[in-house]
Amino acid sequence: MVETPRCGRFFVGLLAFSLVTVLNSAEAKTHFHKWELKYAFKSPDCYKKLAVTINGDSPGPTIYAQQGDTIVVEVNNTLVTENVAIHWHGIRQRGTPWSDGTEGVIQCPIMPGDTFIYTFIVDKAGTYLYHAHYGMQLTAGLYGFIIVSVPDGVSQPFAYNYDETIMLKDWYHNSTYEQATGLSSIPFGWVGEPQSLLINGRGRFNCSLVDSGLCNATNPECSPYSLSVVAGLTYRLRIGSLASLSALSFEIENHSMTVVEADGNYVEPFETKNLYINSGETYSVLVTANQEATRNYWITTNVVGRKPSTPTGLAIWNYFPVPHDLTPPTDPTTGPLWNDTASQLSQSRALKAHHDYVQTPPDSERLIVLLNTQNLIDGRNRWSLNNRSLTFPATPYLIALKEGFTDAFDQNPPPDSYDREHYDIYSVAEYVSANASNAIYRIGFNTTVDIVLQNANTMTKDTSETHPWHMHGQDFWVLGFGDGKFNPLNDTENFNFADPIMKNTVPLYPYGWTALRFRADNPGVWIFHCHIEPHLFLGMGIVFEAGVEKVGELPKSIMGCGETKRLINP
Amino acid sequence: MVETPRCGRFFVGLLAFSLVTVLNSAEAKTHFHKWELKYAFKSPDCYKKLAVTINGDSPGPTIYAQQGDTIVVEVNNTLVTENVAIHWHGIRQRGTPWSDGTEGVIQCPIMPGDTFIYTFIVDKAGTYLYHAHYGMQLTAGLYGFIIVSVPDGVSQPFAYNYDETIMLKDWYHNSTYEQATGLSSIPFGWVGEPQSLLINGRGRFNCSLVDSGLCNATNPECSPYSLSVVAGLTYRLRIGSLASLSALSFEIENHSMTVVEADGNYVEPFETKNLYINSGETYSVLVTANQEATRNYWITTNVVGRKPSTPTGLAIWNYFPVPHDLTPPTDPTTGPLWNDTASQLSQSRALKAHHDYVQTPPDSERLIVLLNTQNLIDGRNRWSLNNRSLTFPATPYLIALKEGFTDAFDQNPPPDSYDREHYDIYSVAEYVSANASNAIYRIGFNTTVDIVLQNANTMTKDTSETHPWHMHGQDFWVLGFGDGKFNPLNDTENFNFADPIMKNTVPLYPYGWTALRFRADNPGVWIFHCHIEPHLFLGMGIVFEAGVEKVGELPKSIMGCGETKRLINP
Repeated sequence: MVETPRCGRFFVGLLAFSLVTVLNSAEAKTHFHKWELKYAFKSPDCYKKLAVTINGDSPGPTIYAQQGDTIVVEVNNTLVTENVAIHWHGIRQRGTPWSDGTEGVIQCPIMPGDTFIYTFIVDKAGTYLYHAHYGMQLTAGLYGFIIVSVPDGVSQPFAYNYDETIMLKDWYHNSTYEQATGLSSIPFGWVGEPQSLLINGRGRFNCSLVDSGLCNATNPECSPYSLSVVAGLTYRLRIGSLASLSALSFEIENHSMTVVEADGNYVEPFETKNLYINSGETYSVLVTANQEATRNYWITTNVVGRKPSTPTGLAIWNYFPVPHDLTPPTDPTTGPLWNDTASQLSQSRALKAHHDYVQTPPDSERLIVLLNTQNLIDGRNRWSLNNRSLTFPATPYLIALKEGFTDAFDQNPPPDSYDREHYDIYSVAEYVSANASNAIYRIGFNTTVDIVLQNANTMTKDTSETHPWHMHGQDFWVLGFGDGKFNPLNDTENFNFADPIMKNTVPLYPYGWTALRFRADNPGVWIFHCHIEPHLFLGMGIVFEAGVEKVGELPKSIMGCGETKRLINP
Repeated sequence: MVETPRCGRFFVGLLAFSLVTVLNSAEAKTHFHKWELKYAFKSPDCYKKLAVTINGDSPGPTIYAQQGDTIVVEVNNTLVTENVAIHWHGIRQRGTPWSDGTEGVIQCPIMPGDTFIYTFIVDKAGTYLYHAHYGMQLTAGLYGFIIVSVPDGVSQPFAYNYDETIMLKDWYHNSTYEQATGLSSIPFGWVGEPQSLLINGRGRFNCSLVDSGLCNATNPECSPYSLSVVAGLTYRLRIGSLASLSALSFEIENHSMTVVEADGNYVEPFETKNLYINSGETYSVLVTANQEATRNYWITTNVVGRKPSTPTGLAIWNYFPVPHDLTPPTDPTTGPLWNDTASQLSQSRALKAHHDYVQTPPDSERLIVLLNTQNLIDGRNRWSLNNRSLTFPATPYLIALKEGFTDAFDQNPPPDSYDREHYDIYSVAEYVSANASNAIYRIGFNTTVDIVLQNANTMTKDTSETHPWHMHGQDFWVLGFGDGKFNPLNDTENFNFADPIMKNTVPLYPYGWTALRFRADNPGVWIFHCHIEPHLFLGMGIVFEAGVEKVGELPKSIMGCGETKRLINP
């Protein structure tokens, strides 16, 4: 087993961040990881509850590799009666679409007792994520980072002394089974706001709020994460959010951040006091330890986009040699106003491709406008796109398509648009009764497609929500954001073709639209979905196929469920 | 879909119990059932928690059929991320060993989104059960009755006016995931005593004990079950226990019971004030409504065999036309002393075959003595038989054996005995480090085998527990019970060959032994295990094979996990 070096918390004067790269040979390496998935009692915010863990940890271990390396993760499922599937978020899976880890889309889930091997190449340097992609298992705690360094001899368009990871997550005390049951019930039971926000797996719940032996404020598991820094040095913080629900803000008291990377793509640097980050996004920011170094400072994260009822998530920016756990003398920063959408939109618009790394998008050959609505289906709350609420078939699409199981899902494609002329996006959801559907979009291989996400009012008066949309299989260009109803006749004029950032996750703001473009040059079946886990659970996604006929022979290991049993020949 | 008539709660002067039989044609029928398995919030004892339900109910619907009928149950799993398997407890599955529903033994579990069809013949009249046989899903609430009536024109050796079912269960407030995680952890987390006892799915927890909105004493779901009776009539109560842990006593205040059936076999009738019943057992008792009929009486169930900390389970014996929910004027009966093992043993010994239905056992050709011990394996608490603690392979035995996957499990058979000469069953477990094992016993087809279950001290000083052992695939003769260490040289002399009762579940008492005999004339792979679900989870069972070469072609539907993927040919 090849050991992947971890960037330590703080090695005084010992190592530069680039040690991993320096030691690597010029040849691509293969990194083997052996993961046992199991339930364990964890107290990340002092409250003891079950979490899905990797080798006993939640979040799981960070995967480190260099661009071009191969990652092999041998997953042993010991979740008693529960299956699992793990998605490698931001990894394009070129040539290995069956390793995308999306249950229902490309694989049957991994059954308890079984061992499944994910093998894929990390073909692009950057900051990526992994997490469960099945039911509500991300919420249950299966998540982590993938850090891919640049090839030998290749430089990055920015400099820093240390490389650190900051994982953000919201955390719930009830079980994901309770959440999922509520979401599927009549009357609807919403998951509600999280109990706490975790920074690198640590948060703090106010134990005095619960009268039970389950909360212990002195548990070391919930001591705040502390990042030790040396005055004068510059830190690259790779920040990722795998929140279940919450859009977040992130800041370091008194310290400015320079955004340099987003979802594995270099950003034309810009400075900000506060970073907005949605579930499924990653950013690299550079922070110089340039403040009075005789004290510590707060690192904080707060809920935005929804009216918060969750306390600020706290960590410590620790100036060596101040004690790492010394509480800063100030009150924690409370972050921006939760409903300052203009400020969030402003950051989204500020994200441009770094001037040396601009990839000009080709012309589009198709436009798909997706109206995001909340609907009732059979009396249950759901989310729909153009009135279709995604339900996964028992047989994963990739297998059904390759094996010709045409009865595995609805063969009629869903609509490319909605009734744009008549639909009022400011009224309470007009599509009161949508359809559950497992139909998929068929995209011409190597064609270029625009998708415009159109937001609308939910089923609640004067309410429209933020949705972070994430695409599997390829990055997309972010062409623009707008307020109100997208008009294909004139809104395209304001698209940014000059230096659009490429991303894999992009927010759709309340009552607004977000336009993106992608080139369907990666054969496979891919899901594009809201990264709020309960929203995907309620149907907020589409699946598309492109060039599936070019996909090689599927591994047997992804089969075993649904109609794939037809392929069994005893 | 064929409707299966249910014996109603109370039809005044309308129907005799035997209506079902009368209306049946002479031909065997097929009964179709369509079950959706899902999680739902239930409050069976006033405390709201998740339960695994069948079509929304826990316990699930009773299956009614006549001897010789075919049962078809189409199971649709909508448990989000969790698999399932259902065992038809007491049904021998002659010719359909793949329908026994034991995950790991005969089938891969049913995955979410999949539909699985169980088809089997109920070839013997009697009172049977069904329940999940996977992880801790019985504890989670998946359980119910199978009632098989006698063929047309066949009489039973007793008479009654009405036929009723009484299901007993213990109930926990934590989740089975929490229980299973505790059981698998270091340090060991025992499930503890149940919070309440349920009679026909209804119990009562003292809501004042919890400070949460989860307990509601006025919830109609937890109003006590009330059985309405007419003075002078005789009731056949089919009593089953699917407790997770608890051995139970059952009684009806002021009313005597006559035991007439046990596990689907006619009993030489005997009278008792109190019925002891272990998890996995069923009994039919006759009760005549012969008491003062102007009031109601308590029906009670209590924990025995373990020091109880669970309140008495309550239901009402209601004399029509007294209001069915009128509280009896007396205090509920508290049942026998929990540790009066002699009394329990006495009932076990009183169970003999009805004199008209004696089946004389053939001579035995093999003796397997199974020492029951508690052990540490890799630091974890487990239960073992002859120092082997059962772990299920990823590939079910039946499939592995039929397909020749010899690497799917340990091919070396486990031992037929233990070190009887030197092992002190009264000392704290001497086999301090046992082996986890998936090895199985190979039994000659059509041979007759004796099994002696030998109890011993656990890992706790002066402690030995009661274990109800349940056999799949065939009934066994109960040859005898004894105290202390079984001695094959002279204890066999006291075996009852004259009129042994046949059963599928039999208790093993503290520091004692239980001897049984069975004829291995049902081709298949069968598990014989302690029916305390956490004990089986901790390895307390053996698996044996007999005549597997005579088993017909396996259905593909039971495959999909483990090495069965080798049979996939895309």
